[in-house]
Amino acid sequence: MPIEKVAIVGVGLIGGSFGLALKKAGFVGEIIGVSRPTTIEAALEHGAIDRGAPIKDALGESDLIFLAQPILRILEQLPEVARLARPGSLVTDAGSTKAAIVERAAAAFQDSKARFLGGHPMAGKEGRGVAIADDDLFQGAVWALTPQPGSSTCDVESDFRRWIERIGASALELSPQEHDRVTALTSHVPQLASSALAAAVADGLGNQEHLRVAGGGLRDMTRLAGSSYEIWRGILLTNPENIREALDLYIAEIEAFRDQLTSPELAERFESAQILHKQTRNT
Amino acid sequence: MPIEKVAIVGVGLIGGSFGLALKKAGFVGEIIGVSRPTTIEAALEHGAIDRGAPIKDALGESDLIFLAQPILRILEQLPEVARLARPGSLVTDAGSTKAAIVERAAAAFQDSKARFLGGHPMAGKEGRGVAIADDDLFQGAVWALTPQPGSSTCDVESDFRRWIERIGASALELSPQEHDRVTALTSHVPQLASSALAAAVADGLGNQEHLRVAGGGLRDMTRLAGSSYEIWRGILLTNPENIREALDLYIAEIEAFRDQLTSPELAERFESAQILHKQTRNT
Repeated sequence: MPIEKVAIVGVGLIGGSFGLALKKAGFVGEIIGVSRPTTIEAALEHGAIDRGAPIKDALGESDLIFLAQPILRILEQLPEVARLARPGSLVTDAGSTKAAIVERAAAAFQDSKARFLGGHPMAGKEGRGVAIADDDLFQGAVWALTPQPGSSTCDVESDFRRWIERIGASALELSPQEHDRVTALTSHVPQLASSALAAAVADGLGNQEHLRVAGGGLRDMTRLAGSSYEIWRGILLTNPENIREALDLYIAEIEAFRDQLTSPELAERFESAQILHKQTRNT
Repeated sequence: MPIEKVAIVGVGLIGGSFGLALKKAGFVGEIIGVSRPTTIEAALEHGAIDRGAPIKDALGESDLIFLAQPILRILEQLPEVARLARPGSLVTDAGSTKAAIVERAAAAFQDSKARFLGGHPMAGKEGRGVAIADDDLFQGAVWALTPQPGSSTCDVESDFRRWIERIGASALELSPQEHDRVTALTSHVPQLASSALAAAVADGLGNQEHLRVAGGGLRDMTRLAGSSYEIWRGILLTNPENIREALDLYIAEIEAFRDQLTSPELAERFESAQILHKQTRNT
């Protein structure tokens, strides 16, 4: 069954970009937005959705339901979504952590005739809101999917996976636990490493004038530090164990660099860092 | 006394860019390069110098002597430079740490009729060598200078400071100790934070395929990790106390983030990080 109607719940940067990307890739069905009236207005103007609707109406008539709100809002709304989703429809999400959402969904969808598939498109850019939504946002991006083990793929899901590819992304299957463990290392710790570095430099510099004595390195390393706590709160609250473990690994590595600072052994640490550096450029 | 002849010792990225920048800014005197024959050839081809010469000849006839080799090479060569420098000339350098070089220079230049002024242009780019030298490299950059307290400014030094401005940089005076303390925080720790993060991610990821589950954040945060130990060795060996202290401050900050991960107090840490983030964008 091909997807004919899509509901996007939360038409911000990710939700809006998904709508725009679908249209650009040739989706001719209807895209219904569920958001606050001002957001719907902006999304319509931007061409990201065809019309707005209350959640009850939108979910009752859509084949694919895409939850693109902040994590904590998704968690809160899952029971309502499971109740309202049309039988046979597929509900998926864009939350940046997966274990908490998938666990909540498993309970919420137990008696639902709709199905849930956890997802996380690894794409984004600075800023937020549908105003900066971008039909190319998912080009070249990995779209993590966390299917239930043993569940068969329904038709809507097959079609959804085709649309992921048509908008330029490539699906990668992981368990929710694997996803959260890996993103703690590759995304959550980099954020905290940047924020902590910015906070440490702010603490350590007596004189703000001395910030002039900084090269491009500090700029790079504190770019993520511009992120607001609001955006990160949901991630930190739903993945604390993995993040703590990954932070401990990072701290141990910094301590090793500190303790070998003037030892020739440091050359090897630089080398393994260089290998990872190259790998991040190749993926 | 205006500078009529400049000797650049070590015609790599920084030395070559200094030559190109001087010419672009209207310097009509002669620029003499001191480097290995293949480097001199490349520098001539690139237009960064007017001719090459052995160190003895170049230093004996130049008004300004610019040492742009790696730190450890500068340290090693300072006594020879002090001996060979023309009486009345100014010797300055581009080493990334200052206390060790200034201390060595104080001893080496004690009986010299040339003068030494420590310097560190805060400019650079990825890669190395005169092939990527750039006449715009110092545009907008801070050029740290570490004059001896109480020493009067000689004519050559005044003229050198004018050339710093003409090539688009702005001088900032610091003591060598202050310079090394500040750059430990603003440059050396960012480098080690990046290398350690890359090494930790390499350690922590079981499966390299999982690197695909990484956004732009990890890329940013591991850009510096591409640096080679060779380039950093001299910095680490000549500034270990400040770097250790700054690393300890950074570790303490990461531990605070870890311990407050799910606490509302984390909002304040994100905020002080955001303030520093903005400041690095404004300077």
